[in-house]
Amino acid sequence: MNVLEVRLGELSYPIYIGSELLGDSAVLTPHVGTGGALIVTNETVAPLYLQRVKHSLKDIRHDVVILPDGEAHKTTTTLELIYDALIAGRFSRDVTIIALGGGVIGDMAGFAAATYQRGVRYIQIPTTLLALVDSSVGGKTAVNHRLGKNMIGAFHQPACVIADTSALQTLPDRELRCGIAETIKYGLIRDPEFFAWMETNLGGLLARDEDLLAQAINRACQNKAEVVAVDEREQGERALLNFGHTFGHAIETGLGHGEWLHGEAVAAGMCMAADLSVRLGRLRQDQIGRITRLISAAGLPLRAPRSIPPERMLELMALDKKVLAGQVRLILLDDIGSATITADFDADALRDTLSACREVA
Amino acid sequence: MNVLEVRLGELSYPIYIGSELLGDSAVLTPHVGTGGALIVTNETVAPLYLQRVKHSLKDIRHDVVILPDGEAHKTTTTLELIYDALIAGRFSRDVTIIALGGGVIGDMAGFAAATYQRGVRYIQIPTTLLALVDSSVGGKTAVNHRLGKNMIGAFHQPACVIADTSALQTLPDRELRCGIAETIKYGLIRDPEFFAWMETNLGGLLARDEDLLAQAINRACQNKAEVVAVDEREQGERALLNFGHTFGHAIETGLGHGEWLHGEAVAAGMCMAADLSVRLGRLRQDQIGRITRLISAAGLPLRAPRSIPPERMLELMALDKKVLAGQVRLILLDDIGSATITADFDADALRDTLSACREVA
Repeated sequence: MNVLEVRLGELSYPIYIGSELLGDSAVLTPHVGTGGALIVTNETVAPLYLQRVKHSLKDIRHDVVILPDGEAHKTTTTLELIYDALIAGRFSRDVTIIALGGGVIGDMAGFAAATYQRGVRYIQIPTTLLALVDSSVGGKTAVNHRLGKNMIGAFHQPACVIADTSALQTLPDRELRCGIAETIKYGLIRDPEFFAWMETNLGGLLARDEDLLAQAINRACQNKAEVVAVDEREQGERALLNFGHTFGHAIETGLGHGEWLHGEAVAAGMCMAADLSVRLGRLRQDQIGRITRLISAAGLPLRAPRSIPPERMLELMALDKKVLAGQVRLILLDDIGSATITADFDADALRDTLSACREVA
Repeated sequence: MNVLEVRLGELSYPIYIGSELLGDSAVLTPHVGTGGALIVTNETVAPLYLQRVKHSLKDIRHDVVILPDGEAHKTTTTLELIYDALIAGRFSRDVTIIALGGGVIGDMAGFAAATYQRGVRYIQIPTTLLALVDSSVGGKTAVNHRLGKNMIGAFHQPACVIADTSALQTLPDRELRCGIAETIKYGLIRDPEFFAWMETNLGGLLARDEDLLAQAINRACQNKAEVVAVDEREQGERALLNFGHTFGHAIETGLGHGEWLHGEAVAAGMCMAADLSVRLGRLRQDQIGRITRLISAAGLPLRAPRSIPPERMLELMALDKKVLAGQVRLILLDDIGSATITADFDADALRDTLSACREVA
């Protein structure tokens, strides 16, 4: 087991990374408070892992709430099911919420923890690669609004993250690829060596070599922890972690949440941001070649779906949370491993990107 | 105009107290950010004060959302109307939410500010005495769950509080008395001189002498600011501000939110907590006499409604946010001006209080 630390002063917490951690009582129980626990999971994950987590809680009083699976359910309506379970179980401010699942479960359980009785403790046990390398670390919690992704949320740091690499053996291929999209992101924005490592090892990752997966998760979490430590509230560098996400969120909202998976939308979004970076003379043509080759080899989409016209994409992008003073801000690449956030780009170039990076009919 | 400061390091903010501040552009506009404003108010307050606030915003872009009035609407359903207005107006992270109204508006607009795009700026412009002396200061935001009051919320400090004493001239008598209940609370838990001052000046306050009201608001806000400065997140002393509230919230939830006003429920709750304090030998009989005389003179209830049986009160009190490790914690008085939070009390004495402090048929 490897332990990384997210350094945030009083809010610091460990990320435990290793095999078969999910049922390890010695890892989990020291982080559960005195007021019992509510496990929040979904109908896909529960049959696979719920019993192991329940068992590892031993004699700690706990309830379970099982939510429907998928991004389409990341709503305030589903959130109410968590609140209802907390109140029905008479849990108080000393409860610990345990998020067992992918990014949707982590985001929703985390937001419930941020807001139940004005804030309670929670633990992330991610079961998808996307959650392992990205969403479970850093304290971003949220639900979607029908008009925009993650519009309602809070920053609320977990008490710990338990990253069990064994959980990836049961993950559907499509979700594995989504996690790889977010992993590639770290290489693109700040870690060129990791990008090169991904180029070399993509085959092994797709074949679920557990040692390679553990290496990728370690490196990704290390990157995430470094960024969050210097900018918890996304006043600066943390915004770079949203590389590809302004395009990606527009795709997700435009199609209806859940049509494309988050990682798929982000993959296409990263290609679009790279395309725009080339048009603006920031990125070299051969670099975009490396990027699209890796994303394509991972079986991820390179373009936005045909069904969302460029004008609609623009409209949806204007709802992005990075908009300031009415200006859309985008994260652009200057190199593989170097990114900038800027509102200073040519609107025509963006239109060209939106037209060019659209699936052919 | 008097200016108090709530000292919370980077989160510090001023409370402006004075007459005719509500339309004062020079007070309001320096606290509005670059991304425009959304005024959140209700259908009672809007006809009285909305135009003045709109006018004071001058050329700052702003939208308005007018909510139904009353505690019964302090729900996640009403909250959605604020989110919808924010998204429909295409407001970004740099928006400023302006809460114009009483405690319900302040709590809901504040919670929307805490959670829209993971947190935006907001300003409190309280228009009821209760909001002026209590809820607008200190950053507690919340909505009710049908099973419990303020169950869903966050700590989120405002950018400033604009306390316009003139607004009290339009306040219904019943609401004025509710504010007096929370004002008396400060005297009881930590400021015996203020309690004595209230005994002397209650008549003038009920007659809406603006100078006396301003003095009461200043003293109450000073007390609140001191407590919040040492304990923002209610780990210690701040819990004392909930004196009377465990009983009061049980009354509000038991009757259905909005039947009794919050200040009325708190007034009865304070009498019940004092009664229990006497039964437990903490408080002298003659002191409870002073307390009930003042609360009664303010035209506030001294007992819980007949319709909620003691067993139901106990059940509802067990949902209180101060419950820890399954134990109800209550704030008890040792003297006028001195309070303690404790889970160490005789359960039979509590039952006796609940039976004795119930309206006669």
